Amino acid sequence: MINSIYIDEIIKTALLEDINYLDCATDYLIDEDQENTARFLSKDNGVLCGIDVALRVFEILQPQGFEATVYKHDGAVLGKGDIIAEIKGKTRTILKGERTALNLIQHMSGVATAVNRAVKIIEGTGASIADTRKTLPGLRPLQKYAVTVGGGKNHRFNLSDAAMLKDNHVDAGGGIANAVAKLRKKLGHMTKIELEVRNLDELGQALEAGVDVIMLDNMSVEQMKEAVDITAGKALLEASGGITDETLRAIAETGVDIISMGAVTHSVKAFDISLKISS
Amino acid sequence: MINSIYIDEIIKTALLEDINYLDCATDYLIDEDQENTARFLSKDNGVLCGIDVALRVFEILQPQGFEATVYKHDGAVLGKGDIIAEIKGKTRTILKGERTALNLIQHMSGVATAVNRAVKIIEGTGASIADTRKTLPGLRPLQKYAVTVGGGKNHRFNLSDAAMLKDNHVDAGGGIANAVAKLRKKLGHMTKIELEVRNLDELGQALEAGVDVIMLDNMSVEQMKEAVDITAGKALLEASGGITDETLRAIAETGVDIISMGAVTHSVKAFDISLKISS
Amino acid sequence: MINSIYIDEIIKTALLEDINYLDCATDYLIDEDQENTARFLSKDNGVLCGIDVALRVFEILQPQGFEATVYKHDGAVLGKGDIIAEIKGKTRTILKGERTALNLIQHMSGVATAVNRAVKIIEGTGASIADTRKTLPGLRPLQKYAVTVGGGKNHRFNLSDAAMLKDNHVDAGGGIANAVAKLRKKLGHMTKIELEVRNLDELGQALEAGVDVIMLDNMSVEQMKEAVDITAGKALLEASGGITDETLRAIAETGVDIISMGAVTHSVKAFDISLKISS
Amino acid sequence: MINSIYIDEIIKTALLEDINYLDCATDYLIDEDQENTARFLSKDNGVLCGIDVALRVFEILQPQGFEATVYKHDGAVLGKGDIIAEIKGKTRTILKGERTALNLIQHMSGVATAVNRAVKIIEGTGASIADTRKTLPGLRPLQKYAVTVGGGKNHRFNLSDAAMLKDNHVDAGGGIANAVAKLRKKLGHMTKIELEVRNLDELGQALEAGVDVIMLDNMSVEQMKEAVDITAGKALLEASGGITDETLRAIAETGVDIISMGAVTHSVKAFDISLKISS
Amino acid sequence: MINSIYIDEIIKTALLEDINYLDCATDYLIDEDQENTARFLSKDNGVLCGIDVALRVFEILQPQGFEATVYKHDGAVLGKGDIIAEIKGKTRTILKGERTALNLIQHMSGVATAVNRAVKIIEGTGASIADTRKTLPGLRPLQKYAVTVGGGKNHRFNLSDAAMLKDNHVDAGGGIANAVAKLRKKLGHMTKIELEVRNLDELGQALEAGVDVIMLDNMSVEQMKEAVDITAGKALLEASGGITDETLRAIAETGVDIISMGAVTHSVKAFDISLKISS
Amino acid sequence: MINSIYIDEIIKTALLEDINYLDCATDYLIDEDQENTARFLSKDNGVLCGIDVALRVFEILQPQGFEATVYKHDGAVLGKGDIIAEIKGKTRTILKGERTALNLIQHMSGVATAVNRAVKIIEGTGASIADTRKTLPGLRPLQKYAVTVGGGKNHRFNLSDAAMLKDNHVDAGGGIANAVAKLRKKLGHMTKIELEVRNLDELGQALEAGVDVIMLDNMSVEQMKEAVDITAGKALLEASGGITDETLRAIAETGVDIISMGAVTHSVKAFDISLKISS
Repeated sequence: MINSIYIDEIIKTALLEDINYLDCATDYLIDEDQENTARFLSKDNGVLCGIDVALRVFEILQPQGFEATVYKHDGAVLGKGDIIAEIKGKTRTILKGERTALNLIQHMSGVATAVNRAVKIIEGTGASIADTRKTLPGLRPLQKYAVTVGGGKNHRFNLSDAAMLKDNHVDAGGGIANAVAKLRKKLGHMTKIELEVRNLDELGQALEAGVDVIMLDNMSVEQMKEAVDITAGKALLEASGGITDETLRAIAETGVDIISMGAVTHSVKAFDISLKISS
Repeated sequence: MINSIYIDEIIKTALLEDINYLDCATDYLIDEDQENTARFLSKDNGVLCGIDVALRVFEILQPQGFEATVYKHDGAVLGKGDIIAEIKGKTRTILKGERTALNLIQHMSGVATAVNRAVKIIEGTGASIADTRKTLPGLRPLQKYAVTVGGGKNHRFNLSDAAMLKDNHVDAGGGIANAVAKLRKKLGHMTKIELEVRNLDELGQALEAGVDVIMLDNMSVEQMKEAVDITAGKALLEASGGITDETLRAIAETGVDIISMGAVTHSVKAFDISLKISS
Repeated sequence: MINSIYIDEIIKTALLEDINYLDCATDYLIDEDQENTARFLSKDNGVLCGIDVALRVFEILQPQGFEATVYKHDGAVLGKGDIIAEIKGKTRTILKGERTALNLIQHMSGVATAVNRAVKIIEGTGASIADTRKTLPGLRPLQKYAVTVGGGKNHRFNLSDAAMLKDNHVDAGGGIANAVAKLRKKLGHMTKIELEVRNLDELGQALEAGVDVIMLDNMSVEQMKEAVDITAGKALLEASGGITDETLRAIAETGVDIISMGAVTHSVKAFDISLKISS
Repeated sequence: MINSIYIDEIIKTALLEDINYLDCATDYLIDEDQENTARFLSKDNGVLCGIDVALRVFEILQPQGFEATVYKHDGAVLGKGDIIAEIKGKTRTILKGERTALNLIQHMSGVATAVNRAVKIIEGTGASIADTRKTLPGLRPLQKYAVTVGGGKNHRFNLSDAAMLKDNHVDAGGGIANAVAKLRKKLGHMTKIELEVRNLDELGQALEAGVDVIMLDNMSVEQMKEAVDITAGKALLEASGGITDETLRAIAETGVDIISMGAVTHSVKAFDISLKISS
Repeated sequence: MINSIYIDEIIKTALLEDINYLDCATDYLIDEDQENTARFLSKDNGVLCGIDVALRVFEILQPQGFEATVYKHDGAVLGKGDIIAEIKGKTRTILKGERTALNLIQHMSGVATAVNRAVKIIEGTGASIADTRKTLPGLRPLQKYAVTVGGGKNHRFNLSDAAMLKDNHVDAGGGIANAVAKLRKKLGHMTKIELEVRNLDELGQALEAGVDVIMLDNMSVEQMKEAVDITAGKALLEASGGITDETLRAIAETGVDIISMGAVTHSVKAFDISLKISS
Repeated sequence: MINSIYIDEIIKTALLEDINYLDCATDYLIDEDQENTARFLSKDNGVLCGIDVALRVFEILQPQGFEATVYKHDGAVLGKGDIIAEIKGKTRTILKGERTALNLIQHMSGVATAVNRAVKIIEGTGASIADTRKTLPGLRPLQKYAVTVGGGKNHRFNLSDAAMLKDNHVDAGGGIANAVAKLRKKLGHMTKIELEVRNLDELGQALEAGVDVIMLDNMSVEQMKEAVDITAGKALLEASGGITDETLRAIAETGVDIISMGAVTHSVKAFDISLKISS
């Protein structure tokens, strides 16, 4: 789904980073015509993400004659030992692309798996898990996509496509009501406004001002519950700030609509996938 | 130390990712001439890395008139609450650059802190901590640099600058002795050869073949000890494979020279640093 | 306001396009040390846009010693003969940058002027003028910015930041209600949904489905009026399709919220601005 | 004919501009395997340009399995309702590429159509229509190509490939004779010199100096006639400056060789072409 | 004179090629604050070219505080031991930029020196030395510029800015007369036509067809003399093909206008310049 | 073997350099459907390098339907008149790609041939020929690869992958012993250290310090012999500095291990290969 032009660019960057000239073991020892098969194997339990991106690495290295059979697609639940895909191509292709392909699929599956764990924790409540702009530089599209594969939703992609007002914006705009009104006059009709509030007084002003979404910043579960009651569906409520798997369920049960978690993209644990080459 | 041209490229990529057009809250609400000061604050205990990269984000956004006072430099030990640097510039600059700067410094400090923890665990043994090629696509130079800031050492940067022989290379080369000999004839005199071995028999062949470094792949502590005895300084020994903070000390005490850990770059926990803008 | 990194990239592209090697008249005839002053003059009546971008062309060609005094800023109403800015720099700089600077400022002012004419026509009604994705390849940020300078508003920037459903989407989604419901489940909370309708029956379904914005595609003024009545503020209404300055007022008076016009970006008449070099 | 590497670059830029992540309506609602056919239809009368470029957009989005049947090629005279081409591919491909493809073909056909109208007006005279460097940043090759498709000719591509002397060059060079002589010594033998003159005295000097082409800048029709008589074929004469369709014929009949028109590239009216997707 | 944007791009490419991460000797051993002076010294006799490009390498590495005093400018005649410039900056800057700067200045001075030797050989004849498109990929602007610094002239820059007809073009066009006539109808008025001829019969046809320049391909000195007589100034004559310093004078004395030499750009001998760092 | 992504980039750069718009002879005279065959012919005796890169030029210009039969592969010994490859494709493809393809293959074969001549001269001694970082900006990977094809070996690729200590490093590090010790602590275990020495005293210190390679800078043959005796295999010895084909044998016979020659990459004589198009 991600723009394929972006994917090709990130893969080319990664391959140039990893082979600035040649692969001095593979190019000197492996015959150009030698072929191998290899299998992507899951070595953990979680959610797969990035198999197409991983396979694209090899296609870029070998435009002709590389073949793949995919057994598990993005979003599949993986168990330890599952075969994800089988590939066939030049041994040089496989050895040169292996690390880049694994770095990508392991990272993306790591994001999807972490998101999915959070999604499961809040299952049955009305809340959704969302990402943030706390992504790794250059990798945002891959990470945002992985969030959706894990069952989460994407917050705004960047500073251009939705407006988030923090205290500095509010101060410069002359208070909540004025700032929101001023902004409404300039923003296009397809752009939403979210306002960060730190207490129930600000919440009241935000509702008055008619923003689309209100972020409850570092509030206690009690405060959130109150906020939900006060809001009564007049705006979407987003809980944010230092949320962990441990505190997630209680927050979701307050009735907030969205829970955004920076950790699912800024602190990713790679999901263990290996490429087993037939020797 | 990292090539400044690379740093500027990654920052420009990140800023274009985060502002593909304009910042629709900041540009519409904050006056162009408004200025602010802000402070980078540590919110955890660890090792700082990336302050220069973070500051460069703002300089790129505002070539004239941005100022910074740096209190802690890369490598500094951070405690919760420490002021890392104070910046002064246009409010628009600070708000637009904040997230990109934090994403970079938090990731780099996360790497340095994890490496440093490992380095401390093995203190007093003769072993060093090294990174791997299990890095995040597009971020390898930043991550490799952060490893050194944390007290670790860099393994080869990529497939071009050192040769690592795995079983496929050995098989294609006709066994360890033949493969190494064949490669020696082609490799330049500044390029080292490392060979991955899975048992003591292969270790013997590797020593015979005269490789520079031998990787002990997923061996037990007992096997490693034996490997150290057999090797007797005739090659450097690298322990690798699924090593965690828990198993680190015992491995270091076997006498191996290098312990390489993928986790310090593929599974990074962001180090918590905030930018507190004076309102 | 536009991301300065984007501006520098488009200027560099333009300059490399215009000077792939050297300026074979200027570099061979004008002494490197010769300096000149020059003035940007308006030769028509309209709205200025792009003076900062135009000046940036010269700063890029001559990082040291180029000076400019700006008399009119973006958004200023220009009359024939108005002095917009005065520049001073190397004669080579001025002659090499002249065409690129004028091509940019004339195009951007052309967009702003056309938008502003439309805005004036509908003054006093509740409607706004918006742009579309019918922009010139590679120039979208400049054009979108010029639209705002002319007093218009920006529609979504691209396919990623807001969802617009056309008949193909509706068909694939199983009718309006199903398609919207299906999409809501996947879209983030900061992303709006607009639906294109061709008749009042579809309008009813769209309102039922609860979309944020409804596009009235090529409807007659009568139909639009009816649509406004039916909608009664439950969604924003956007008029679109072959709208010209002649039909604008009547459409605005129907009570629609937004009138989007492709022509302001896809059929731009350059606004006449000259650079008069003192000889 | 345009360098295909350039075409691919401009298309990739346009697609990344339009889909910085994913198409949030199409990717979430249209099944990946769904296919459609669609037709490019002319909705006006004019000259087609850019059909290959438009089709290339889809090929880039979908390297395998996209098919097109082309009924009208670049240069074809289009009437309202003409089918230009029929395409078949994934629905996602068609919906994602539609706007970019149309933006390109409409702009290029707009240029070709405007040029062709001018060419027709001067038919039978000895004059040709030429473009200028007043092109849109980043789009010069596409625009220059469209000029030739419309029956016009290309003036110099940029500052590097032919020399045009204006008053600043002449002054710096010590008068027309000296400047031209000085330049001849430095220019290669494949590079022509054009001189801009504002009166018949300067024309005389230009002829004396032996330049290849003389630009008659903003002269009246009477002056141009006189200039043609004086020149008597000793140089090519180019009429330039504020020429419109209305004044074109009279100018062409003065006997000048070339009439250059900035408007055909700086003030392009998009030619209306639609992509009708079978639903 | 060369477009500075191009120069910066080629320098950045070279520096990223030479430092893909860090300089593992300099960054680890030289203190960041250490400064040095260094001198560019000529170690041979010839013509200097590229001193500004060489200095730009260091400015890019160190935007603040790098200083240079230039004693010899491009085009200066160098003797062994001449001091070209003195620089002062961080030791890290000097050591990291040294090789890239020298690679550039040595290559460019090599081109200028070779061209100048050829220019001297034909001094007093009416002929000029010209370059060809036989340049090194990616370096054409630098090489073309160096040719002019050495006293030579530039042939066409590329396939787009002047037309050169070879036998395949002539055959496809239906013979010399037809091909030239056909081309004239399409080419702009600023574009010259050159035709390659292999004998005096073709020369006659070329003159008849009225081309601007005729290339005498691999003709003997006798044939060239005859060609000059026949042509009698009706077109420029270019001698080309396997010309060496030894055969140059005799060819120039035949009366041809231009002698083009591929060797000055495709077979460059680096000119020996060193950077002597004060220790 | 070279990273194909790099090869495509350098070819695209070269083609955009050579055709910034269109080929104004070929595109206007040759029919798009015309096809031709052509042969790459050797016109000299030497070693072939770059045939795959040369063919890739045409594949990039014509992704479908271009065919090639290769008779000689990289490393083949060429005699005058040898047919290297036969190609078949559109005439436009062949004419547009010809110069770029030849510029690449002639340069690469020039490097391989020069290296091979040196390799032959020292045949039977234990020494190898190595390259240096004295490469042409942007072309290092192609040149390094050509060195290996000619039978030479690659020195370090860049400043990042191996450490070379010169006097400035030694001074800053506090003498040879200290500098090497200090560096060892920071360098990774896969990175070698080479030290440049100017006399036998420094050689002794270098051996003491335990560096991997010692560069004998501009030493006489006598000194080198003595150095070999002293070293006795405890480090590799590299002779460097102003070495020519004339002095090569004597140096090799001193027993040094590596002889590095800048000239094979900084002063390349193009190897004469032509593309003969069937007319």
